Amino acid sequence: MSLRSRVAIVGAGMVPFGELFEQSYEDMAVGAFRAALADSRAAREDIEAAWLGTFRQAQSTGASLVDPLRLYPRPCTRVENACATGADAFRNAVFGVASGAYRLVAVAGVEKTRDRGPREGMQGLAEGGRHPIWATGLTTPGYFALYATRHMKMHGTTREQMARVAVKNHRNGAHNPYAHLRFEVTLDRVLNAPQVASPLGLLDCCPTTDGAACLLLAHESVARKYSEEPIWVAGLGQGTDTLWFGQKPDYTGFQATRQAAHDAYAMAGVGPGDLDVAEVHDCFTITEIINYEDLGFCPPGDGGKHIESGAPDPDGDLPVNPSGGLKSRGHPIGATGVAQLCELTWQLRGRADKRQVPGARTGLAHTLGGAGQVSNVTILQGET
Amino acid sequence: MSLRSRVAIVGAGMVPFGELFEQSYEDMAVGAFRAALADSRAAREDIEAAWLGTFRQAQSTGASLVDPLRLYPRPCTRVENACATGADAFRNAVFGVASGAYRLVAVAGVEKTRDRGPREGMQGLAEGGRHPIWATGLTTPGYFALYATRHMKMHGTTREQMARVAVKNHRNGAHNPYAHLRFEVTLDRVLNAPQVASPLGLLDCCPTTDGAACLLLAHESVARKYSEEPIWVAGLGQGTDTLWFGQKPDYTGFQATRQAAHDAYAMAGVGPGDLDVAEVHDCFTITEIINYEDLGFCPPGDGGKHIESGAPDPDGDLPVNPSGGLKSRGHPIGATGVAQLCELTWQLRGRADKRQVPGARTGLAHTLGGAGQVSNVTILQGET
Repeated sequence: MSLRSRVAIVGAGMVPFGELFEQSYEDMAVGAFRAALADSRAAREDIEAAWLGTFRQAQSTGASLVDPLRLYPRPCTRVENACATGADAFRNAVFGVASGAYRLVAVAGVEKTRDRGPREGMQGLAEGGRHPIWATGLTTPGYFALYATRHMKMHGTTREQMARVAVKNHRNGAHNPYAHLRFEVTLDRVLNAPQVASPLGLLDCCPTTDGAACLLLAHESVARKYSEEPIWVAGLGQGTDTLWFGQKPDYTGFQATRQAAHDAYAMAGVGPGDLDVAEVHDCFTITEIINYEDLGFCPPGDGGKHIESGAPDPDGDLPVNPSGGLKSRGHPIGATGVAQLCELTWQLRGRADKRQVPGARTGLAHTLGGAGQVSNVTILQGET
Repeated sequence: MSLRSRVAIVGAGMVPFGELFEQSYEDMAVGAFRAALADSRAAREDIEAAWLGTFRQAQSTGASLVDPLRLYPRPCTRVENACATGADAFRNAVFGVASGAYRLVAVAGVEKTRDRGPREGMQGLAEGGRHPIWATGLTTPGYFALYATRHMKMHGTTREQMARVAVKNHRNGAHNPYAHLRFEVTLDRVLNAPQVASPLGLLDCCPTTDGAACLLLAHESVARKYSEEPIWVAGLGQGTDTLWFGQKPDYTGFQATRQAAHDAYAMAGVGPGDLDVAEVHDCFTITEIINYEDLGFCPPGDGGKHIESGAPDPDGDLPVNPSGGLKSRGHPIGATGVAQLCELTWQLRGRADKRQVPGARTGLAHTLGGAGQVSNVTILQGET
């Protein structure tokens, strides 16, 4: 897979994530969009089309974005793909630009998870998905807890190793002005937190968070018109898997991630060893450990040892989640994939302040939806 | 706007629309996909990616399609864009192919509207949308009824003219084995049907319908490998509008349609006079009348006279909805836009049986979402 045109990120903006009861869905969308515009040389009138990533139904169409942004009558597609929603909205926006259809587009991920209308009252994250196969009593933490126990059984992974993911990501996120949970945690605190779904405790789980993030994407022919620091889309991949839990070949990894990573690495012509920084989907601490393996950062089964080795630390061989990840920045579902790419954009420009990975030129972002039913991997590169 | 590569439809398939209580969502998806495969020379293994158009939330991610079709681990994006959902899934799939990312992809529109789970019990079509602005007591028929009364007031449009749309589309649909309501209606029956939202009666409204439709799209480099009769995507356009009913400049037309049509005509390099056949969004009879105007089939305000003139009849200057349209074929929301393109594919191949428009070479499909918040226009051309 290769694209016929190069596509660049020419603007990145977010609203600080959190429990944003004081902001409407539209407020958050406008805030992120304005920040992205301010980060570029583009004006609102230059935007030719838009993509919206929103998971929950109450905000449901392209007009939910172009109305508050006053972008109508320009086109806008709403994409939904579980927790990969934002990343997949980005992927489709890249296709729109690479196809030649548009020169400058906006992609926004926007999500309210804390305050919801009465019709959505029963659709909390803990309730899990809505496909009949989910109706087995298993919540989302329950699914990932099953992966954790299997990983512990097969590979000797420990609760301490999982807790180290939380310690690292909270330490990173404490420096991130966009993060929801800006506090550090100790290993003891993680290990002694109330249990959610054994072996996962409260601090093994990402929070439920409101937020919005926005990127402006430009065709190579106009990228430098809109930014002095374009960041290039080098690789894109998406993988999927069956919805049926009982049909998976194993419960220690995610086929969707492996497929997405394979395709993204192939398109970018790089491998895990070429990466300088990664933002991965740590919805639970065990997920980040599994991601290390599925993304090729370490051999299969070695994810627990990998976090212990310090390689994913800010001064390690391949820093993972310098933003704090979902664990600390939070997980406003449709916004998460876009926020990861905002973070990478800033990292690859060398403008990530206290969380900067020195000299980062190539970065990878990874999202995982449902209990592994979909994954997107995106590889970005700065100017060379 | 122009695409860097040409994209062709190389397979089209549907399940007959109706009240399909005996088929699951997955049954319908598989049925349409198998029909599309059988209509092409492609095998399931050749499909490199997929797009799913589904409006309702219960079937919510790309995996909802790739799981029953056994296409995983290949990518799949779910698009939602109100009643333009299927057409916009198609648009994004075209971008995916034209970008160079994929050579052969599937796009499916799948929708259950008749039997729904308990969580969706309050989310009927008549209830309207879910944005707060809809919470004014207005149902979808109510919105379009306001357009009807305004059109009557401004342009002298009559209930008889609207009823003629129903008579024409039911007559067309009676020949369509894929149509939900395969019966003819008389002018008297339409005019004397129970009132839904004045001036719209029951037979001015499309039914609520279950169904699925699927298309296979190929890059120009492989189109003839997969079909002896590729049908080419000549033009694509999408327009949007504000969600706020009170902010529209007028209530006799849809800005989203006008924008979508403008862009699609420009990309295809054709005008309304070049069209041989059209499938338009007749969710209500007044909508088809307004569409004539917004799509340039007749001057603004003349939609009522246009249906009276017989121009949209099967033997008229520009036959509209030879399939029966939403009015007769039915309106399984996410499937509608894809079904229109199936019909055009068959028309442009000369294989539409009793509903064939003789010698059709250029066709237009149009969908309209919400009360005009989004519209997609697609122009297809047969081999020249």
